[in-house]
Amino acid sequence: MTRIIAAPEPRTLDLIFRPDALATLRSRYDIHECAASDIADAPEDVLSEARYIIGQPTIDATLLDRLTSLRCVFNVEGNLMDNMPYDRLFERGIHTVTPGAVFALPVAELGLGLALDLLRGITDADLAFRENRETWGLESNREARLLTGAEVGLIGYGDLGKALHRLLAPFRPKLRVFDPWLPSSFITDAGAEPASLETVLSESDVIFTVAGITSQNRGFLDAGAFGLMRQGAAFILLSRAEAVDFEAMTDAVRSGRIRAASDVFPEEPMPPDHPVRNLKDFIRSAHRAGALTQAFYLMGEYVLEDLALLDQGLPPLRCRRAERETVSLMRSKPVELN
Amino acid sequence: MTRIIAAPEPRTLDLIFRPDALATLRSRYDIHECAASDIADAPEDVLSEARYIIGQPTIDATLLDRLTSLRCVFNVEGNLMDNMPYDRLFERGIHTVTPGAVFALPVAELGLGLALDLLRGITDADLAFRENRETWGLESNREARLLTGAEVGLIGYGDLGKALHRLLAPFRPKLRVFDPWLPSSFITDAGAEPASLETVLSESDVIFTVAGITSQNRGFLDAGAFGLMRQGAAFILLSRAEAVDFEAMTDAVRSGRIRAASDVFPEEPMPPDHPVRNLKDFIRSAHRAGALTQAFYLMGEYVLEDLALLDQGLPPLRCRRAERETVSLMRSKPVELN
Amino acid sequence: MTRIIAAPEPRTLDLIFRPDALATLRSRYDIHECAASDIADAPEDVLSEARYIIGQPTIDATLLDRLTSLRCVFNVEGNLMDNMPYDRLFERGIHTVTPGAVFALPVAELGLGLALDLLRGITDADLAFRENRETWGLESNREARLLTGAEVGLIGYGDLGKALHRLLAPFRPKLRVFDPWLPSSFITDAGAEPASLETVLSESDVIFTVAGITSQNRGFLDAGAFGLMRQGAAFILLSRAEAVDFEAMTDAVRSGRIRAASDVFPEEPMPPDHPVRNLKDFIRSAHRAGALTQAFYLMGEYVLEDLALLDQGLPPLRCRRAERETVSLMRSKPVELN
Amino acid sequence: MTRIIAAPEPRTLDLIFRPDALATLRSRYDIHECAASDIADAPEDVLSEARYIIGQPTIDATLLDRLTSLRCVFNVEGNLMDNMPYDRLFERGIHTVTPGAVFALPVAELGLGLALDLLRGITDADLAFRENRETWGLESNREARLLTGAEVGLIGYGDLGKALHRLLAPFRPKLRVFDPWLPSSFITDAGAEPASLETVLSESDVIFTVAGITSQNRGFLDAGAFGLMRQGAAFILLSRAEAVDFEAMTDAVRSGRIRAASDVFPEEPMPPDHPVRNLKDFIRSAHRAGALTQAFYLMGEYVLEDLALLDQGLPPLRCRRAERETVSLMRSKPVELN
Repeated sequence: MTRIIAAPEPRTLDLIFRPDALATLRSRYDIHECAASDIADAPEDVLSEARYIIGQPTIDATLLDRLTSLRCVFNVEGNLMDNMPYDRLFERGIHTVTPGAVFALPVAELGLGLALDLLRGITDADLAFRENRETWGLESNREARLLTGAEVGLIGYGDLGKALHRLLAPFRPKLRVFDPWLPSSFITDAGAEPASLETVLSESDVIFTVAGITSQNRGFLDAGAFGLMRQGAAFILLSRAEAVDFEAMTDAVRSGRIRAASDVFPEEPMPPDHPVRNLKDFIRSAHRAGALTQAFYLMGEYVLEDLALLDQGLPPLRCRRAERETVSLMRSKPVELN
Repeated sequence: MTRIIAAPEPRTLDLIFRPDALATLRSRYDIHECAASDIADAPEDVLSEARYIIGQPTIDATLLDRLTSLRCVFNVEGNLMDNMPYDRLFERGIHTVTPGAVFALPVAELGLGLALDLLRGITDADLAFRENRETWGLESNREARLLTGAEVGLIGYGDLGKALHRLLAPFRPKLRVFDPWLPSSFITDAGAEPASLETVLSESDVIFTVAGITSQNRGFLDAGAFGLMRQGAAFILLSRAEAVDFEAMTDAVRSGRIRAASDVFPEEPMPPDHPVRNLKDFIRSAHRAGALTQAFYLMGEYVLEDLALLDQGLPPLRCRRAERETVSLMRSKPVELN
Repeated sequence: MTRIIAAPEPRTLDLIFRPDALATLRSRYDIHECAASDIADAPEDVLSEARYIIGQPTIDATLLDRLTSLRCVFNVEGNLMDNMPYDRLFERGIHTVTPGAVFALPVAELGLGLALDLLRGITDADLAFRENRETWGLESNREARLLTGAEVGLIGYGDLGKALHRLLAPFRPKLRVFDPWLPSSFITDAGAEPASLETVLSESDVIFTVAGITSQNRGFLDAGAFGLMRQGAAFILLSRAEAVDFEAMTDAVRSGRIRAASDVFPEEPMPPDHPVRNLKDFIRSAHRAGALTQAFYLMGEYVLEDLALLDQGLPPLRCRRAERETVSLMRSKPVELN
Repeated sequence: MTRIIAAPEPRTLDLIFRPDALATLRSRYDIHECAASDIADAPEDVLSEARYIIGQPTIDATLLDRLTSLRCVFNVEGNLMDNMPYDRLFERGIHTVTPGAVFALPVAELGLGLALDLLRGITDADLAFRENRETWGLESNREARLLTGAEVGLIGYGDLGKALHRLLAPFRPKLRVFDPWLPSSFITDAGAEPASLETVLSESDVIFTVAGITSQNRGFLDAGAFGLMRQGAAFILLSRAEAVDFEAMTDAVRSGRIRAASDVFPEEPMPPDHPVRNLKDFIRSAHRAGALTQAFYLMGEYVLEDLALLDQGLPPLRCRRAERETVSLMRSKPVELN
């Protein structure tokens, strides 16, 4: 039976495989489970025969030489860290893949929910109602706006941006996309308008930030960026707190320039006395956009399906492959908590 | 110039016409504005020459006889009341129309926002975060579910049901529709599954109530109906409070059987000490789903466009016509407040 | 049992009802079948009790007075003729309905097929291949064009125009619509661009004529209209031959200005020696676009469903109602042949 | 300036670059143009400095060693031949890419046109009309069927299959896909039903063959396969003649079992006396589905865009990369003619 080394921490096999999927995995493969830190201590036959690794353990050049049958590393945390000799992996034709696309849909659904909340004041209106200070009908809607027909900007157009685009389609937005890694025609073909960051910032009623973090873009949404936004714009931060200067964002909210919602924070959890906890016109989501059981189980399905393709001598398809050109640029912070 | 009698209360012309649209209206038509209660006192030439009425004043048979040129009554409140001799209007080929479809999209957008909030706990999570008792990541998502792929039921499939269906499309729901006034094939053609009320109630993860009120269906969602729902189902009430036994609904929420959100209430405003104000797993919206300035202005556009059609000798198209067969069944309560 | 008078000629009950649907009809209703010309000779109780007529017999005022229970006339030929006292029907609240929408989809499918044929030369290339004079690859495609991204014009936006629009959607055309009976915003809401006839004629790569004939538009596509079209435009005539000056159309084809396809002809059948039979760059379809068994059976389903609604005291929904304002303008020629 | 070696035969730079795109290419890069057979004779500095090759010349190991700066080979013919040491290319991280996806849309549009022609008899009806033997209306439609609601099978689900799927969407087919290189869930996510080859063959009203040829599937649609098809099924062959046993296909047509259309033939051109030229119920297209000027120019755009990405140190995106696992299996025959 084909050998797999499983060292998925902080994930666990139970987290990412539905019970029946885990049974399938165990019936098809000979699985050596170990702590990520102990992989080098695995028996020599396990190392030499393992075709796949499920996990993202640190692998140095010496260890890689012992992994003579390795074909694919499934990084189930989802962020590529600088803990493997990727050049050597590429040379040997070993894939490193991430099933992070499973989070795109749950994050997009929450993102749409947050946008509708900002545009219609759902949370604030409920809170007011609880506290006997609600207003009724038109009077409560002085700042409410439709999403339909709005000018919407996406900063980033990877899996998450595309998932949001699909959910937004029936709202017929004027959709502008800023993504410096994509040719314009790719965005045009997808039915959106490629735009500069400045245009997205200054011409949008609703802005979704869905860009990953690289060594080149940390904190690129700074005070200047927030200063470009329209009065009353709705800003939704879904990907990584490192994309924004967090204080600049909260200042822009506090000043009344924008409304905002965020699923990610510079510290998680945030300190108990942090002023963001009381910030008006701001919706807080404690990094809960992607971490649904449904998403983790889908990750297990992706892994099983790609294992089957690899077993047939085909390349993996459901998980996303690390790219030789960009692997060293990726800097999204791995999670410590599922 | 063609004469119009304008008696739109509780609406006003300023509410339903954008300033430029109102200028257009005034430039094209000779408008007699009066209180609804004073219409019978209008000068005889106004009554005999008026082709259109904007408003829903009480019209008795005598008054109707004096309105010899009347072609169309634009009921801009939106609910058909028992205050006109409809039979005689139909006989004379006078249209009575309602532009209530303008509210379908804003209500549908809010409805989707409420559904996403119930499924993902947006409001509750924000409140917890404010109060330093938030949980992070997977731990906070124990009851969270995707809308994508969910079983969704629509009770009613008029303008609002159709607008919701369009917004739901990218979520690829298994969508069931109960609407006793529509042939099955109409629903099938629209891409949904016609179903009995029982099936919709018992087989849905998310239920939207978007049915109008007739003399036949008041309170049809009673304790028995809520008892059929799935444990943990999300119930969203968007059309009329009279569709439900309100106490049965809040009991079902209190017992933990369902989560719910409502835009309509048996009394508006609700008493300050009403227990619904503190009800957990319930999102309150103070009849704010439809009453957006954008919707009222669209109403004015519909009226202007249908006036232009009528002026050309064509039937109205943007507003919905009262039907001879059903006008007497309609019992949705008119609003007193915009 | 509710009585129906059936006099559907040139249709027959077998043509429009699938065997099981006809059995349903017969089990639910007491049907008096007669020739259209003999309806006045029906027994008095049949006339006085008949709630519905399936067919479009001539009905004069005297006969109508005897039809005391009549609620709806199902004109299953589909064109409204000047053979009933429509004013009196409207006054009495008797619906006259046409199930002609059943032809929209089959005609739209053929229309798309004809457009693709004109753009890619399918018929001509097959004929050349049969005759050993085909050219291969790029050489054979000197005039071929994609439909995707083309500028497309619809003349008329009724059921057929809408059906075509749906089929064209994935080609992402720039779609312009000319329809003088519709407000601009109706077309905009449908996702197309309202345009003048001149703009549609002069700015389209592909033009579909799908307008019905009224007393006002006979022959409105004349030599001047064809003179406005783009060199090489594809013109597809689907609705009625009377919409065009047929000779002007064939002249425009013969001169090399346009390519065309037509499903309708000024005489049907056309004379054996008519030059249109040999016209190059022209595709001939002998009024076969709509007349599919599937469409006729759908007509029967529509009739059964609307009967059920009427039986419940609701207005018909699947068939289209004649309008008091426009019934006298309709001039599309009835068919003699199914 | 970055160096490119251009040896695109049988393509030419003029064929694949619109004049302005070619000017852009020439302004950005130092281009060495030569015959594919002469590449080894290029000056040593050209070989050592060339970052990109546009073309698919034979490259042996020795030549590859001299191409020390090479990053990407743009195979603009589109089929991967066994004329390069791919293993060594992969090891060095040199991409080999094909812009063949540009043909997907033109082929899909023609494929849909052929399907509508087979279902409605467009070509046959036109020919009959020319020859004074047409039938009119329903009589001519005895075998006509709607595409809407039909059971449709796709054999292969690469770029072409996906493009067809998009065009077919408004017809709401029951769509089954057979593609042994794709996990089931990939097809399910795309909104189709994964199926075995047998199911696709035996349960479809319309079958599109859009699979590429590998060393494993040559002639897999043989007499047995055609024997499984439904009486009257429409079979459309779009990808490669080698996918079918051509004689088995024409026998199935001749026997009246199926109707078929094909864009590809075992010999191109076919012999003048080949019986397929007179085959009834068969539509012939002389390999004209993809070779549109619009498609070739799009190829040039893809190349320019991917060059820009590669220049930025990013991987190519618009063209499809050869895969280490499958490159040796590809056996679609290169074209000799554009």
